[in-house]
Amino acid sequence: MESIELTLDTGSRNATVDLTGEAAAFVAGKGDGLLSVFVPHATAGIGIFETGAGTESDVVDAIDALLPRDPSRWRHEHGTPGHGRDHVLPAFISPSVTVPVQQGRLQLGTWQSIVLIDTNVDNSHRRVRLSFLSG
Amino acid sequence: MESIELTLDTGSRNATVDLTGEAAAFVAGKGDGLLSVFVPHATAGIGIFETGAGTESDVVDAIDALLPRDPSRWRHEHGTPGHGRDHVLPAFISPSVTVPVQQGRLQLGTWQSIVLIDTNVDNSHRRVRLSFLSG
Amino acid sequence: MESIELTLDTGSRNATVDLTGEAAAFVAGKGDGLLSVFVPHATAGIGIFETGAGTESDVVDAIDALLPRDPSRWRHEHGTPGHGRDHVLPAFISPSVTVPVQQGRLQLGTWQSIVLIDTNVDNSHRRVRLSFLSG
Repeated sequence: MESIELTLDTGSRNATVDLTGEAAAFVAGKGDGLLSVFVPHATAGIGIFETGAGTESDVVDAIDALLPRDPSRWRHEHGTPGHGRDHVLPAFISPSVTVPVQQGRLQLGTWQSIVLIDTNVDNSHRRVRLSFLSG
Repeated sequence: MESIELTLDTGSRNATVDLTGEAAAFVAGKGDGLLSVFVPHATAGIGIFETGAGTESDVVDAIDALLPRDPSRWRHEHGTPGHGRDHVLPAFISPSVTVPVQQGRLQLGTWQSIVLIDTNVDNSHRRVRLSFLSG
Repeated sequence: MESIELTLDTGSRNATVDLTGEAAAFVAGKGDGLLSVFVPHATAGIGIFETGAGTESDVVDAIDALLPRDPSRWRHEHGTPGHGRDHVLPAFISPSVTVPVQQGRLQLGTWQSIVLIDTNVDNSHRRVRLSFLSG
């Protein structure tokens, strides 16, 4: 299994980061297998959805509506008020996703992107692990 | 890795399609490994739950309650009014799931089925990729 | 692929069970590959999040808020009143997750744990399958 870790600065960017280009470059030339995309942080998830037509913001708005930042809602008390919400996020949006690869190409649909979802404002430094298991 | 693509007509069927039979047939005789079920569409997800006792409709109702079709909620404006909701769906119900396989048999529990969840009414033609990584 | 099944008694424990220790022990010495954590039950899911600072309870509260036990909400009628909710849970919190492994070590982040989420009060006996695909 080949595995690398991407380092991202999410501080000055949106809470969503499109990783499709990095993932496509990583699997290029590697043949057939499964790509694992894994975020080793407890307050982020990975989604596969369309980017560039507003859905990134729609997803963040939906998270805010379903899991409000209101600090009175959460027992977890560390960090910025409401940060307890960010810790619940990965239970609903998993930090782990796998994508099939054929002949070195991600088998994503036309409108699918692999997206880091990170609503944590306390940490602007993020890592994402890409691993390829060939078969 | 062996990989095939199923083609489904969801237009005249419910928004949920049980794929367990197709998945079981695909892995039959293939030994041990991981099955990847992946939908290459940006408005659908894969769930693993019981079918035949009402949960399919309960899941669709829960999606409508949590992510309402109300067009004013979503920035994404293409397609039928409210279609922006369908684009948020896969962030919460991933288009990718893996299932362990032993001796050519899916290691699902008694009441588990693999289900395509597709609330998009604009597209009745759907593909689902099944890939098997043996090990 | 090596695969084992854990047996858990969730009846006298919280609805969340930290499986990180069992998973780490299972992959120890196994080299590089992907760990599949899979619950063969139709009313449970697997989350990856921080334990020990309140998030376990926050996740259970969020499930109760988003998917209320109110029996009038659900078609599925078996079991304890409101059990239909438990059957919807795995559509939103998948029973399947994969974790990359390097040199026999889970590549989890410092604050990440692998957690069984089981809100079903009708069944106190639970199994979880761990499978390791090396590569």
